[in-house]
Amino acid sequence: MDHAGRRDRLRAAIGGRGMDAVLVTDLVNVRYLTGFTGSNGALLVRADGADVLGTDGRYTTQAGAQVPDVELLVDRATATALARLATGRVGYESHVVTVDGLRGLEQATSGVELVSVQRAVEELRAVKDDDEVDALRRACAVADRALAELAVEGALRPGRTEREVGRELDARMLALGAEAVSFETIVATGANSAIPHHRPDGTELRGGDLLKLDFGATVDGYHSDMTRTLVLGHVADWQTEVYELVQAAQAAGRAALGVGVEVTAVDAASRDVITAAGHGEHFTHGLGHGVGLEIHEAPGISALGAGTLAAGMAVTVEPGVYLPGHGGVRIEDTLIVTDGEPELLTLTSKELLVL
Amino acid sequence: MDHAGRRDRLRAAIGGRGMDAVLVTDLVNVRYLTGFTGSNGALLVRADGADVLGTDGRYTTQAGAQVPDVELLVDRATATALARLATGRVGYESHVVTVDGLRGLEQATSGVELVSVQRAVEELRAVKDDDEVDALRRACAVADRALAELAVEGALRPGRTEREVGRELDARMLALGAEAVSFETIVATGANSAIPHHRPDGTELRGGDLLKLDFGATVDGYHSDMTRTLVLGHVADWQTEVYELVQAAQAAGRAALGVGVEVTAVDAASRDVITAAGHGEHFTHGLGHGVGLEIHEAPGISALGAGTLAAGMAVTVEPGVYLPGHGGVRIEDTLIVTDGEPELLTLTSKELLVL
Repeated sequence: MDHAGRRDRLRAAIGGRGMDAVLVTDLVNVRYLTGFTGSNGALLVRADGADVLGTDGRYTTQAGAQVPDVELLVDRATATALARLATGRVGYESHVVTVDGLRGLEQATSGVELVSVQRAVEELRAVKDDDEVDALRRACAVADRALAELAVEGALRPGRTEREVGRELDARMLALGAEAVSFETIVATGANSAIPHHRPDGTELRGGDLLKLDFGATVDGYHSDMTRTLVLGHVADWQTEVYELVQAAQAAGRAALGVGVEVTAVDAASRDVITAAGHGEHFTHGLGHGVGLEIHEAPGISALGAGTLAAGMAVTVEPGVYLPGHGGVRIEDTLIVTDGEPELLTLTSKELLVL
Repeated sequence: MDHAGRRDRLRAAIGGRGMDAVLVTDLVNVRYLTGFTGSNGALLVRADGADVLGTDGRYTTQAGAQVPDVELLVDRATATALARLATGRVGYESHVVTVDGLRGLEQATSGVELVSVQRAVEELRAVKDDDEVDALRRACAVADRALAELAVEGALRPGRTEREVGRELDARMLALGAEAVSFETIVATGANSAIPHHRPDGTELRGGDLLKLDFGATVDGYHSDMTRTLVLGHVADWQTEVYELVQAAQAAGRAALGVGVEVTAVDAASRDVITAAGHGEHFTHGLGHGVGLEIHEAPGISALGAGTLAAGMAVTVEPGVYLPGHGGVRIEDTLIVTDGEPELLTLTSKELLVL
């Protein structure tokens, strides 16, 4: 779907809620609705179809090239300048606009009723169109290939540090066409692998240790997210046991993905496997999250989540078991929910890899 | 200064404003005041000295290691959990807290008066201590060296694309020890160099073209920021003319940096040189900005700025002249304001380099 189509979907949503316009100030939402990638921008979507993109002088040329079909307003104070164009009942993003920002909008307008539009754009974004799925596919392929190349080249060997491995993964993803890494790469070995979000440090990889890698590539703005856990050298029985448990739980989570399924049920399908094995307390986070223009977006998949899955949603499934002081295993894929089997985007093997 | 010293400075500031506590929810401000680098955190700084850091279960271990001297509260809803501990008159960051966020705080507390603390932490952050200046120095050194290596290796030659050059600069900074790049690297050649914030694309470098590089490295959380403009092959007279003009304007801006000087006067010192040469309309942005844990922070140095410089402020000076359709030149340094001469952190030559 093109950007105009996305704006029309938003227009239909706000019209149904009695709004004359909505002021979109979240930059990721602005990008989703227009394709504009500058660092200062806002969008006024109007019920009558006369949308206006606001940005400052640095981006006049870029906005014209990226968004040729929307009127442009050049003003450094994008949000207030656009708000002055609006009349009637105007939605604003109350989860994005700050307290000071709302005060500014109120002072800049008169005769305008500002009402929260909630996460209307994020709701649209949760279901990906074909172009978005294609970008996610390419982002996941970059991450898959980067890991495969490093493994083949022997870069994941004892004596190297977590930090070195992380930097090589990052550099390899960039070399393979990522415009950025999706988030700060996690490389955690030995006891560090028991820390769910360990930051790579000078710890050296050692034979017999687990090595957990959680990383992703960004391509055309879309983020991939994958975790694999390997073992270096000889595998201990407890490592195999934990690995196979997480592997089974991850498969159960993937198998539960389907149209109309409650996100809490997906979390439970995976978590129950781990709990039944007596490790419930060692799985300390939610099962997964939506992924797209942001690394974490709707829908959240956890025991505290709400709502059901729809076809086209891009989600991660990432159970983990973490044994403090010993080590941890997490296995994570990015997938697309479909009417049938979910489409797996991260294709790296999930068999226990011993390097 | 250590983190406890920074919290004491904030405590003194809020005590003087009659507040019993301040709830710091900006993550960069939390990092500045504690050293905590997780992605979910908030800090309650109390007049009585009993500060509390809030984060969620993913970061329990990390918070304990990074912030051993502050009480830890583990709760996913960090801000509201901390607000419940507060009493009396409590400051919050109204430029950071969203409209929905404030509603949540109000609902979570009773008998607490929530008042805006404005940008109290950002004001402290504008003046860097020795540890911060040291990190900035190292970040600038990484960027200097990355550019020098690429130039020596012949990576900046005709036939290569902007995107290739940008990716190599990024990869080289990471290889040299940057934990990340400071912002999306700008590589702009030929007519693209007339776009102040051009995004690198498939445009090839050609002999006789200007090549503008704006990039930076992040080290220990601190960002460097530098722009250099080179020429490939033969230099045309108009290029020399524009270059020397920007060079003179940049020197004037640097010479104007001093304790107690109005930021508007610094902007004017540089801008006047360009205006006097008849290019005032081709210098379309402010002269510079503060830099530190964020790439753009206080103080802003522009005609619209306010306030004066103080010793220890880290700022950029980056005038440019952009001739649409032809090309542009920007020269940018990162410097520290001192009682005497400013300290130059970006040491790459500013003579016109012809490759």
